[in-house]
Amino acid sequence: MEIVNNSVTRLRNKAVTEYPKLVEFLKHNRVGNLAFVGDDGRPNQLPIAYGLVDEKVLLHGSTAAGGLRLVADGRAVSFGVSRTEGLVLARSAFESSMHYSSAVLFGNFKVIADNAEKDLKLQAITEFLFPGRGAELRSNTKKELAATLVLELELTSWSFKVSDGWPEDGESDLELDIWAGVVPIETKFADPIAAPDLRAGLQSPPSYISKWRP
Amino acid sequence: MEIVNNSVTRLRNKAVTEYPKLVEFLKHNRVGNLAFVGDDGRPNQLPIAYGLVDEKVLLHGSTAAGGLRLVADGRAVSFGVSRTEGLVLARSAFESSMHYSSAVLFGNFKVIADNAEKDLKLQAITEFLFPGRGAELRSNTKKELAATLVLELELTSWSFKVSDGWPEDGESDLELDIWAGVVPIETKFADPIAAPDLRAGLQSPPSYISKWRP
Repeated sequence: MEIVNNSVTRLRNKAVTEYPKLVEFLKHNRVGNLAFVGDDGRPNQLPIAYGLVDEKVLLHGSTAAGGLRLVADGRAVSFGVSRTEGLVLARSAFESSMHYSSAVLFGNFKVIADNAEKDLKLQAITEFLFPGRGAELRSNTKKELAATLVLELELTSWSFKVSDGWPEDGESDLELDIWAGVVPIETKFADPIAAPDLRAGLQSPPSYISKWRP
Repeated sequence: MEIVNNSVTRLRNKAVTEYPKLVEFLKHNRVGNLAFVGDDGRPNQLPIAYGLVDEKVLLHGSTAAGGLRLVADGRAVSFGVSRTEGLVLARSAFESSMHYSSAVLFGNFKVIADNAEKDLKLQAITEFLFPGRGAELRSNTKKELAATLVLELELTSWSFKVSDGWPEDGESDLELDIWAGVVPIETKFADPIAAPDLRAGLQSPPSYISKWRP
C-alpha cells in the first residue's frame, strides 16, 4: 500500500512526516471532524468519535445518521483530528499564535457490511474509546448491529502539523516592555458522576477509568 | 437579513435553535474547523483560530496560507466549532456516547480588503482571542497588514447541537451489574510559562490572563 504524505504548503518546519507520530497522535485522541461534500455540492462537516484499530480509522453511528450515510457511498472525505494545546503570547499581535497538533486524513470510507466483522470492529471501537469497559458490557444484539453503520478509512493520504514553539518575535520587538510566553491548555477528566438511576451497590466507578487519557 | 436554522436531521432533541445560544457558544471558544472543497474537487479542512466580532466570524492568516487563500474567492464553506465535554458510560456499548457541543456554520467568506478596516478587524480579533492584551501591544505595521488576509463570515445559516444527557439505557439493561454515568472532560489553562528570551524585570505574566476562559 502506498503511503502518501501530502505536502504541507506553509510552515514546513511544523510539518511532521513520520507515520508513527501520526499513529501515536490518533491513538491519543477520540473525536475527529468528518468533512465531505453534500449532495448539494457544498462542504459540510460533523464532529464524530472514532476508533483507531489496526491503523485504520473506524467510525460508527446510526444507519439513519445523515452525514455518515452520505460518506458510506465512498465519496471523497477529509477527516481531521486536532488539539489546541496552548496560547502563544508574542510581543506583537502579528506573531501571536497557538500551540496545536492537527492531522488531516484524506480518502474514502469503506462500509463494513458483514455482520460478524461489524461486531468485531464495534468491540474494537469500544475498547479504543473506553479501554477495559468492553469486557464488562453485554454483547451487541442483532437489532443493534442492524441499526449501526461501521465505516473504515485507511491511513494512506494525510498531513500532520505540530506547532509547539516559543514566540518568534523580531529582534526590534524583544526590547518591548511586554510579557511573552506560552499559556498551556490542558484537557483533564473530572471525577465521574454516577447516573441518577444507578443500581444500589454500584456507587464506585470502575477502576479502569483512572487509566484513560482525556 | 434572513437567519436560516438548518434542520438537524437526527436527534432532534439535541438541536439548539436559539440564535443567542449559538452566539454564546461561539464567544466561549476560539478555534474552529474550516471545511471547503479544494480546486481538485475534494473536501479539505484545517483548524484555525477565529474571532467573533459583531456576531460575525473573522479569520485571519498569512496571504500565503493555502486554505485561507482558497476560501477567499467566496467559495462555499462550512465552519465548525465543537467541544467534547464528557464520556457517557451507558450499560451497553450501543447506548454509550459523549457529551458535546457542535456548531456548524455555512456560507461564504468575504475578504476585508480596505487596510484601515482590516486593521480594526485584526485588533478586534486580538481582543477576542487575548482579551486585554491588545492595549499593551504595538500597532500592526503596514508590512504586517499587507501580509495578512482577513475574512468574514455572517451567521446566516447554521446548525447547533448540544448533547448533555444521562445514559439512556433500555429498561432491561438497568438491572445489569455495571456502573453507568458521565466522566466530564474539562479544559483548563496551566500556569503561563515565560519565553526564554523574556526581558529582565518582566517575570510576572499580565493579570488579564487570569480572566481568560480556556
